[in-house]
Order: sequence, then structure tokens, then C-alpha cells
Amino acid sequence: MARWQSGARERLAAAALDLFATQGFDRTTVAEIAAAAGLTERTFFRYYADKPEVLFPGQEEFDALFLTGLEASNSARPMDLVAAALDHAATFFPDGRRAWSRNRRAVVMGTVALQERELHKMSALADALTSALVARDIDPIAAALAAEAGVSVFRRAFAAWVNDKETRPFADIQREVLHKLQVLLSTN
Amino acid sequence: MARWQSGARERLAAAALDLFATQGFDRTTVAEIAAAAGLTERTFFRYYADKPEVLFPGQEEFDALFLTGLEASNSARPMDLVAAALDHAATFFPDGRRAWSRNRRAVVMGTVALQERELHKMSALADALTSALVARDIDPIAAALAAEAGVSVFRRAFAAWVNDKETRPFADIQREVLHKLQVLLSTN
Repeated sequence: MARWQSGARERLAAAALDLFATQGFDRTTVAEIAAAAGLTERTFFRYYADKPEVLFPGQEEFDALFLTGLEASNSARPMDLVAAALDHAATFFPDGRRAWSRNRRAVVMGTVALQERELHKMSALADALTSALVARDIDPIAAALAAEAGVSVFRRAFAAWVNDKETRPFADIQREVLHKLQVLLSTN
Repeated sequence: MARWQSGARERLAAAALDLFATQGFDRTTVAEIAAAAGLTERTFFRYYADKPEVLFPGQEEFDALFLTGLEASNSARPMDLVAAALDHAATFFPDGRRAWSRNRRAVVMGTVALQERELHKMSALADALTSALVARDIDPIAAALAAEAGVSVFRRAFAAWVNDKETRPFADIQREVLHKLQVLLSTN
């Protein structure tokens, strides 16, 4: 029972991406996704709460990519903590994942329901980072601004990383984007 | 015909806010909102595309609050242009509107569908500001970062402005929040 389901989560995501890309998100049913992955609809719903969710990591898992980096830092400066969070998250986007991420992004950008889910995930991530910063005794408004700036940098870096001609590693792109933001906000 | 409908848009919004606050968003129908405003369901849909939309300004109208300020500025610096956009938008949140905004925010924060619509509006605003900055020959990544930073500042300022004990004008709060972001991102 356990054996044939190994990698079920990933197989469902791969089948869904394939179906969404060829026949569209709206025209694809959960039953079709499950069948294409050699699984049942019931198994689908053990891994994902609904159809849009199949292209996203779980919120806790996603937040943890960032929070682990933040928690490992001893800095008292909000943006240093956010930078540590971003650096840690970057390790989960190795070059081997870029092709998958490119295909996934094309589908997400073409589907309103998936764009909205992405906004929701990013907003929840910003909330999680804000809470972690507030737990470090950072002023709540500064914490929220720093967290949202971090999420904005991550999103821009991700968009650049999956660009057709881009070959640089995620971490390098992300540090450059963070630097751009610092230059933009410097007052002198 | 025209006369009894004057202010229909505002009456529908006020009726909806009242119903959402007392009986909940999910349990309120568009027909009930229209009836409470002394209008028909058909009239509701002339002003709003769906139920969540009734608590939001139209996207073009909302974006224009910011774009008008941006377009009036001659600066070549992205954050100066964003600051001009924020200052102009602040004029649409006079103290007389604070009580309404407080009640509206309480309902939005308690309803997932309304939170999601708000995220969508804010994301579309960031896109509109990004396009306006790109039209000024600003690098697209810098433009997106500046636009998202601006939206982040606006959202924090708005949340602070509707706080129970807050009495300062919107524009003052927003300038302070923008300054906080500048301090956070300054590297020295």
C-alpha cells in the first residue's frame, strides 16, 4: 500500500502541470489529474485540499524554507534577518529545478485561480516572517515592512530566475535584487 | 429614474457593510443588499461585478488615486515618484472617512473572500504603478520593487490609520511609514 504511493505528491503535481498546460486549468478535473498519476481522487485529496493547491507547496513547508534561515541568524537588524531568510530559501531552488519552475510559472501566470492562490501564499509568508521578526522584539510596523520587502525581493528574483535566457543561480539573482531595493530606498 | 438612484453605489456599499457586520458575508445575499438599499438586484450588478466587489472601489478608480500623483511628478527617481503617488492617494482618506474605513476593515479582516479581493486589488495596483514607472524608462525590476514597496507602505499606513486610538492624518502616518522603510533598507 505504502510502496506504490511513494512520490504520490510529486506525481500528482507533475500530472496536473501537464494537464493544465495542454488542456487548461478550468477544463481539468481532479479525477483526471489523479488518473494521469495512476492514483485515485481520494488519494489526491489526502495530499491537496483543492485543485489549485496541487501546484503549491504546503504553507507551513513553504514558510519553513525562510523561517529556518531567519531563526539561524543572530542579527538584531530586521533586514539582516530577512536576508538570512532569503538566502536559506534560495537553496531550495537549485538549477535542476529551473525547467519545472519555468513550466509551472507559465501555467500559473495564465490562470486567475492560480495567481490568486500564489498571492495568498505570499501574503501568508509575509505574515509568518512578520511574526518571527516581532518575536525578536522588532517594532510591528518595521517587521511588516521588512517582511513584505523580503517577499517582494523573493518574487522578483523568482521571476528573473525562470526567465528564458537567465542562467545565474537563484541565490545570486536574489542578492542582486535585494541590493537594487537598498539602492532604491537609500535617501542620499 | 435617474433621481432615485443618485448615490446608489454608496448606498449599496453602506447596506452591504451593515449586513456583513451583523449577519456575516457568507450569509448575506446580493438580493438582501439591494433590498436594504431600496434597489433591485439588477441595479446592484450595474455597479458591482459580484458580492465581494461591493466593499471596494473600481480598480481603475483606485489606481488613479495613485497614478495622478505619480504623473504630476517630474522626478527621475523611482521612490520619489512612488512617494508622490502615495501623497496624492492620502488626500482621499480624510478624517471624516476614518469611522467608515474602520468598520469596513473589521469586516474585510474577518472574511477570507474579502481578504483575497483586497490582495488582488493591491497586486493590480502594484502592476499599474510598475507600468507607470517603466513608462518613465525605469528598469523593470527596480520599477516593480519600488511599486511593491509603495503598496506595502500604503497598506501599513492604512492599517495604522484605522487603529482604534490613532488620530493623526493619513498623510502624516504614511510619510512616517515610508521613512521607516528607508531606515530599514539603509545599509549604513
